[in-house]
Amino acid sequence: MALNHLGMNVMLHTIEVAGIIAFASSGFIEARRKRMDVVGVFTVAFITAFGGGTLRDLLLDRRPLFWVEHQEYPILIFVMALIAIPVLRHLRHAVAENAIVFADALGLGLFSVNGASLASEAEMPMFVCAMMGVITGIFGGVLRDVICNEIPLVFRRSNLYATCAFAGCWVYLLLNQLHVMEIVALLFGTATTFLLRMLAVRFDWKLPA
Amino acid sequence: MALNHLGMNVMLHTIEVAGIIAFASSGFIEARRKRMDVVGVFTVAFITAFGGGTLRDLLLDRRPLFWVEHQEYPILIFVMALIAIPVLRHLRHAVAENAIVFADALGLGLFSVNGASLASEAEMPMFVCAMMGVITGIFGGVLRDVICNEIPLVFRRSNLYATCAFAGCWVYLLLNQLHVMEIVALLFGTATTFLLRMLAVRFDWKLPA
Amino acid sequence: MALNHLGMNVMLHTIEVAGIIAFASSGFIEARRKRMDVVGVFTVAFITAFGGGTLRDLLLDRRPLFWVEHQEYPILIFVMALIAIPVLRHLRHAVAENAIVFADALGLGLFSVNGASLASEAEMPMFVCAMMGVITGIFGGVLRDVICNEIPLVFRRSNLYATCAFAGCWVYLLLNQLHVMEIVALLFGTATTFLLRMLAVRFDWKLPA
Repeated sequence: MALNHLGMNVMLHTIEVAGIIAFASSGFIEARRKRMDVVGVFTVAFITAFGGGTLRDLLLDRRPLFWVEHQEYPILIFVMALIAIPVLRHLRHAVAENAIVFADALGLGLFSVNGASLASEAEMPMFVCAMMGVITGIFGGVLRDVICNEIPLVFRRSNLYATCAFAGCWVYLLLNQLHVMEIVALLFGTATTFLLRMLAVRFDWKLPA
Repeated sequence: MALNHLGMNVMLHTIEVAGIIAFASSGFIEARRKRMDVVGVFTVAFITAFGGGTLRDLLLDRRPLFWVEHQEYPILIFVMALIAIPVLRHLRHAVAENAIVFADALGLGLFSVNGASLASEAEMPMFVCAMMGVITGIFGGVLRDVICNEIPLVFRRSNLYATCAFAGCWVYLLLNQLHVMEIVALLFGTATTFLLRMLAVRFDWKLPA
Repeated sequence: MALNHLGMNVMLHTIEVAGIIAFASSGFIEARRKRMDVVGVFTVAFITAFGGGTLRDLLLDRRPLFWVEHQEYPILIFVMALIAIPVLRHLRHAVAENAIVFADALGLGLFSVNGASLASEAEMPMFVCAMMGVITGIFGGVLRDVICNEIPLVFRRSNLYATCAFAGCWVYLLLNQLHVMEIVALLFGTATTFLLRMLAVRFDWKLPA
């Protein structure tokens, strides 16, 4: 049981790091397209990567915050910000565009399901777990758009986004309810969100207005 | 005493639900006017309804958050969001306009005084109680406007709004100080805010610029 | 040791008040330039002055919040808001412009280093202490700009700002590491931020884009 708990912690930790890098990358690309300076690039990447998880931790009253406990996370983004500007200058526009969509879909899946899992561990009711997952997944991007002075993409009539996170969280939560192994539930939930999002972009799926 | 405390809890709970429905309705109408999809409608309604109370709970360090403890609140808004779009399509513009003002004034009164009451229960100093009331009442709308990429209406030179909430909170706090029955203090505070707001809209009252 | 701790508390408290007045003043001037009414002037000043520190306290889970514990802080800003409008009407534009820059640079130095010091007291890792300092220093202004519906100045390619706070925090943290007296470390850190900021404005220093 203790081993299991440790194993799950390591797994959640790894998922967290992967999600951070994916989201921070989408933040770098966005900030560069707005021609921000190094501080702007760092901050937008930081807020995109940690905004959703920080809001979740504030709502669940989890302390220390995950990026306070692991100062290597913000340092990683700080170093990435310093090298992002010259690197991004040499990427072609279309590549950057596709890279955003892919990294962002991966981050969305990883963060949402991770958030639902943490809320479930904290014994929240199921609907709240699903909402915490969606908040973890989308609020980094919402804050990024608010700070960049735009209506958050996710609330406009664009391709399915929050809905993909919502669906993935329910897949995770239901598998969890059926006592499937945690790692399997996490994988299926993340894959559901990721695939739904990629399909929504590919086939231009939208919700009715 | 225990009974009294229970009775007060039930009363505050009822006020909370009424306020949520009022504010969520104003959120639905606003989101529909911006032609958002279902996710946008749900989120704007959710943030309008729970934003102020959530900020208050974060500031007062109250956990679990009221909408986490009662998952029926977000579920209620989720279901309302699904039926809001067809329903709103059949309302005439003028009706919607008036409905926003009325529901919003009621929500403002209910939430502000409820917030002041919770802060008072937490033994905050009086001026802070009044501020917590105003924050509870107005910040849902502020966040809605920030997310919709507008300068919050409440800070522009429009008809009295935050001032009505401020006045209602002081009425509640002073009656409370005089040991008037809690329910009476709550009613008078709420009525003060509601009536001041309706009068301000009707007679175009503004603060000096 | 107890005396030392008390002395440090008094000192941090004094710095806090000076920073609040400096930031609130910049908030008044900004809100007046947008021709907001009294409620707007108060709220923008309040958020500019307390936004950064409140976010820091939420992130560090410090309660009660500093402006809840000391209701004289918000009352001070409330009274200042009432007299700010007539006073500001008689200031000439150029004076107001210079006053914003000066007060803001002072507030930036005082708040950032104070934030780093509080995070250090809470035994956060050093990079996180520096970040908490920068957050305390700049987020009041970020929230002010978000609410005024502008891209935060600090993230655009303008004169060095967050970078000055970052440098001052590291000066403080390194002196602290060398066991220099707390008051000396605070003074040097604050002075570093203040001077760097004034020089950046004077000589138009920017980060590379």
